[in-house]
Amino acid sequence: MRDIPIIETTEQIMFYDTDAAGVVHNIAYLRFIEKNRTILGSEIGLDYKEMSGQQTYGAVVRTEIDYKSPGFLGDDIVIRGWLAEISKVRFWCEFEVNRISDQKNLVKSRQQLALVKMPEGKPVRLPDHWENYFKDGEN
Amino acid sequence: MRDIPIIETTEQIMFYDTDAAGVVHNIAYLRFIEKNRTILGSEIGLDYKEMSGQQTYGAVVRTEIDYKSPGFLGDDIVIRGWLAEISKVRFWCEFEVNRISDQKNLVKSRQQLALVKMPEGKPVRLPDHWENYFKDGEN
Amino acid sequence: MRDIPIIETTEQIMFYDTDAAGVVHNIAYLRFIEKNRTILGSEIGLDYKEMSGQQTYGAVVRTEIDYKSPGFLGDDIVIRGWLAEISKVRFWCEFEVNRISDQKNLVKSRQQLALVKMPEGKPVRLPDHWENYFKDGEN
Amino acid sequence: MRDIPIIETTEQIMFYDTDAAGVVHNIAYLRFIEKNRTILGSEIGLDYKEMSGQQTYGAVVRTEIDYKSPGFLGDDIVIRGWLAEISKVRFWCEFEVNRISDQKNLVKSRQQLALVKMPEGKPVRLPDHWENYFKDGEN
Repeated sequence: MRDIPIIETTEQIMFYDTDAAGVVHNIAYLRFIEKNRTILGSEIGLDYKEMSGQQTYGAVVRTEIDYKSPGFLGDDIVIRGWLAEISKVRFWCEFEVNRISDQKNLVKSRQQLALVKMPEGKPVRLPDHWENYFKDGEN
Repeated sequence: MRDIPIIETTEQIMFYDTDAAGVVHNIAYLRFIEKNRTILGSEIGLDYKEMSGQQTYGAVVRTEIDYKSPGFLGDDIVIRGWLAEISKVRFWCEFEVNRISDQKNLVKSRQQLALVKMPEGKPVRLPDHWENYFKDGEN
Repeated sequence: MRDIPIIETTEQIMFYDTDAAGVVHNIAYLRFIEKNRTILGSEIGLDYKEMSGQQTYGAVVRTEIDYKSPGFLGDDIVIRGWLAEISKVRFWCEFEVNRISDQKNLVKSRQQLALVKMPEGKPVRLPDHWENYFKDGEN
Repeated sequence: MRDIPIIETTEQIMFYDTDAAGVVHNIAYLRFIEKNRTILGSEIGLDYKEMSGQQTYGAVVRTEIDYKSPGFLGDDIVIRGWLAEISKVRFWCEFEVNRISDQKNLVKSRQQLALVKMPEGKPVRLPDHWENYFKDGEN
């Protein structure tokens, strides 16, 4: 089983990420997670720019997101994302978002994605080598 | 048990709701759902403008959202939202998003919320009368 | 000269439109304006859905926007937009955003657009009948 | 006259920055510019986090933005921002956004801001030392 890469991205909370309750708006985290997931994909064989040229896309099928603690304007945060589970044509990624200053966990999330070829919406096979991430045995 | 109100809101898909894959971006639906939920709250006793004056907010604790079918630029869609479950200080709302022209279901979602008083983050009791929505017996 | 139609759209300010300064975020108004402009276009011969099928788009070339007074959570606002000026291949729209309760002007804006055929980016002629909006003489 | 600092920030274009026309949506650039401007402010004496604790904010009074050339999914872009002009209580920042790969200019923009103390909306004096940026003579 090969080590599954964990992608770290960082953000600094801007005004446009916050709302009148004085905290990071719940929707803003989904942007942070998308950026992390996109870079994660590029690292493990899904180059979104190249795929997009072939009208193949990683489509979010389901999102689950838990808001554990509020983030605030100016917070520096780190998003960690990794591949958590694969089937033939779908896969799950998992994410956690922590504030850097106190390592407080703000958000946990998992997203199921499918590779689809547009405009038909036809499912596309996941990269073969992903199985190695989940196979027992030698590296 | 009183009838639980179902709130319907409508949207027309704008360019800013779509992405380069030619479909409605997954995050955009969360805005549609927030608007529906905010109006739903107002209808059943949570006036967000008044609450906000007392620094009390309905905080999203968890979102689950399933993307069933893609929406497209110019689609007229209807969002339906209702109160699905309550506990002492938290509640679940459920939502479905359908395209109006063919009644195709695009999205199903549920969100758990808590009422909190900021800046302390202290939980606030749900409106008493909500229990009537879930009690057996006469109306 | 035919009467130039003025399109009115309304919005209710949601949390996602506001920021931690407690006011409507400056970027949110651009969404309100885009929706108004899109509907304005449809009314005067530019059906964005149909155009998009031909890969023809109204591309914003320049935006000028003045923030006159802050909007707040829960405000009901009205956006008014109209065609202000045309040339061969470009046109200006103008917008004003007022709070409904006190008719306070929050924002004034103008945008220059061009019709372009993608992916070449080739300019497309404006609808001929638009000249009637700006011609002197009988209706 | 002291050298005016030029702040450079970079972005990679994500799906949520694009629209169904296949290009970066015009509104997305305003987020890129806000991040650049916020960091610029921090560098020259306006710490937005600290100011926000005193309910003092840099409010955008006017935005002018010219869209020169389209950006695309996956583009790496650089935003450059600097202080361009000051008066007693207002100031202008200027920005340019270029694609890194071919140094193509995508956007030019200028924004006028005012420092205001909320909730009164009272104007606040700009940092004294900013005058040095615009004074002739020795450094």
